[in-house]
Amino acid sequence: MKGDSGEAVRIGLLGYGTVGRAFARLIASRAPDLDVRRGVALRLVAVGTRRGSEARGPGLGDVRWTPDLASIAAAPDVDLVVELIGGHEPANALIRSALGAGKSVVTANKLLLAREGAALQALARENGAGLGIEAAVAGGIPIVRALRESFAGDRVASVAGILNGTCNFVLTEMEESGRPYADVLKDAQRLGYAEADPASDVEGEDAAYKLALLARLAFGRDTRVEQIAREGITRLLPCDFLYARRLSRTPRQLGVARELPSGRLVLSVRTHLVSSSSLLAKVTGPFNAIEVTTAAGGPFVFSGRGAGGDPTATAVLADVVELARSRGEPRVPPLGFADLRPCEEAGPEEFVSAWSLRFVVRDRPGIIADLARILADHGANIEAVFQEPWDDKGALPFVITLERVAQSALDAALARIRELDFHVEPPLALPLTD
Amino acid sequence: MKGDSGEAVRIGLLGYGTVGRAFARLIASRAPDLDVRRGVALRLVAVGTRRGSEARGPGLGDVRWTPDLASIAAAPDVDLVVELIGGHEPANALIRSALGAGKSVVTANKLLLAREGAALQALARENGAGLGIEAAVAGGIPIVRALRESFAGDRVASVAGILNGTCNFVLTEMEESGRPYADVLKDAQRLGYAEADPASDVEGEDAAYKLALLARLAFGRDTRVEQIAREGITRLLPCDFLYARRLSRTPRQLGVARELPSGRLVLSVRTHLVSSSSLLAKVTGPFNAIEVTTAAGGPFVFSGRGAGGDPTATAVLADVVELARSRGEPRVPPLGFADLRPCEEAGPEEFVSAWSLRFVVRDRPGIIADLARILADHGANIEAVFQEPWDDKGALPFVITLERVAQSALDAALARIRELDFHVEPPLALPLTD
Repeated sequence: MKGDSGEAVRIGLLGYGTVGRAFARLIASRAPDLDVRRGVALRLVAVGTRRGSEARGPGLGDVRWTPDLASIAAAPDVDLVVELIGGHEPANALIRSALGAGKSVVTANKLLLAREGAALQALARENGAGLGIEAAVAGGIPIVRALRESFAGDRVASVAGILNGTCNFVLTEMEESGRPYADVLKDAQRLGYAEADPASDVEGEDAAYKLALLARLAFGRDTRVEQIAREGITRLLPCDFLYARRLSRTPRQLGVARELPSGRLVLSVRTHLVSSSSLLAKVTGPFNAIEVTTAAGGPFVFSGRGAGGDPTATAVLADVVELARSRGEPRVPPLGFADLRPCEEAGPEEFVSAWSLRFVVRDRPGIIADLARILADHGANIEAVFQEPWDDKGALPFVITLERVAQSALDAALARIRELDFHVEPPLALPLTD
Repeated sequence: MKGDSGEAVRIGLLGYGTVGRAFARLIASRAPDLDVRRGVALRLVAVGTRRGSEARGPGLGDVRWTPDLASIAAAPDVDLVVELIGGHEPANALIRSALGAGKSVVTANKLLLAREGAALQALARENGAGLGIEAAVAGGIPIVRALRESFAGDRVASVAGILNGTCNFVLTEMEESGRPYADVLKDAQRLGYAEADPASDVEGEDAAYKLALLARLAFGRDTRVEQIAREGITRLLPCDFLYARRLSRTPRQLGVARELPSGRLVLSVRTHLVSSSSLLAKVTGPFNAIEVTTAAGGPFVFSGRGAGGDPTATAVLADVVELARSRGEPRVPPLGFADLRPCEEAGPEEFVSAWSLRFVVRDRPGIIADLARILADHGANIEAVFQEPWDDKGALPFVITLERVAQSALDAALARIRELDFHVEPPLALPLTD
């Protein structure tokens, strides 16, 4: 790659959506300063987008616009490729083509990295190229660099984070407004915080891609998305926020990867009730946050905008600057994308937590007694029962909190509990997390 | 430096206090894993400490112990020097000797870096050596790396942080217990969170060293400690916490560096009343946190243990790993330690904020009227007056909040107000910060 000879590193951009446009703008505004103050000369020479030259933006200078993305990945006048189209194909083929030609690649494509990260990293290494992935996890939050380098001398014990801005926006809005999920989701869609088809966000799939990448970086294990237990936010009711507050807690969708003494990883994306006094409880709206606990130094919390054009473009440009300087050679060898050890996920018998169980029932005498008996049969100890005043006796919500017990035992109890005749909504179990 | 040939990088450690011992332990426990999983072979070969071989710790293997620190800085069998003795001399001479011999140096010495950082960086560069400084600011929080690399493509607008764990411990304890400053300080000293002579911490000097380093890294300007306006936490009274809560706020000592449109930097270490809903309000006890606001991506918050042996040693080891790999060449050229532009600090007329003014008075009629007149004379608009029920009419506290006004105007008003005859304690002005 160029850069040290005084010649600019020539960048080809694939994709001109929200992040692509933000990146083009950022590089146009920052390149002069980077050149003068950091000695890094960058030049955007080509943009590949379906609309070709019709997409041409203002103020970008002499840039080649083309709908032929493959021509950019292969172009001899492109030193470094930035892939911002997302999805599996054609991104995968384009990145392989660029790496195969010895060009470094920077990508924000979490789905592709979760599926093909190890193979792409190996291909980069074979060709003496670099692969920058900071933007793929939590947008502008520099968590990839922190895990790769700052904690290189420490051992990570767990990574837990608010990894999906859509879910966090919906949960914090439900908490503030007391309105039901469906209403708040519509607001989120109108404000651009949720897609027209929100399934990937609200069902935890998006967070699972990011968690798989974090787990590989943190533990050096070949974590696959399929190993991550997932539960969406779609079943939360307004009463869940009421009872959470009663417990001095608030619901947060967390992706958690934690190494057990056995070497197996607890891997899950689900809604936790976190303590109101925790930092994660203060992370509201579309923000992300990641808590890293290490053997010697932790816990550390990193928070910031996890998505959106500008924050993601900032992370992309940081990788571009690094690769432009280092000619593709990573300074600290990354852990987690090459030479991965096998990953074995922990079973539900190893996920031990205190819990909140929420029920909505047609009231009749003996409900608590029935529940208490079944829970006791499975070794689950009740800590407390909460029932707020409620008008509708035909759909009465209440909450039972449990002392620490394995999810396997709880699941077995809940299977029997669900067969009882008084449920108006299926019971909801949420882990209590500090 | 060695490292790529398969030979270990040989480390000489200067200083064997809390951090030095934690570093020696960490490297003993982590070196095998770093070797296998990261391909970084490290070996501690010498420890320099006043006590010489009497300080010999267990489990460190074949290490040379000596009271002759200069011999380690110059030793041909030492590739990299870790300086953990602190203070100006002899640390300065030892680091210069090591850099002059082409050895890379990792240091946690904020005082020395604040005073001599630019000269040491230049010396490192001349000799093809590296200078690692991550541990000098906020212990284990990887803020130096974030400013140097992750935000390389962005423009930092401001850095604001809880930079001193002693102050944060004292303030959060005062808030929780309602006890006076002197009592809580004694607790902090007993628990090891404050030194026997606490002046450097509680008067803001320690935070000012760190802020000077942060401002250099963030803005590339030659910020000197003398340019930072400082005010300690020693004047806070229990009633200040009462009124802060009334305003849904909490006192936090913050170091702030913010670039004005003029290019001048607002630079201060003082107690702010931050909003209770902010992340900074949730950073309690000896923890540190730093908020970085950038043009495109911010705000970002990084929180973690800002001091102590293990967190600091983790940051030191991260730098050691990086330098061992890169043979001293920084991947992204650092901004702020070489090629600094001049730094001009903003004057009090450019520090504009909303304020809380706390008075403790011998009550008599007309006090508010007197204050209101003087404040109005200086263009300071009263937003509200708060007076909680209070038994002691001979020492009655109350608070006036002001709309946004420059500190210069407020200072002029306070100079006149202090001449009035009703004060039991000098008035205290605290900026209100979101």
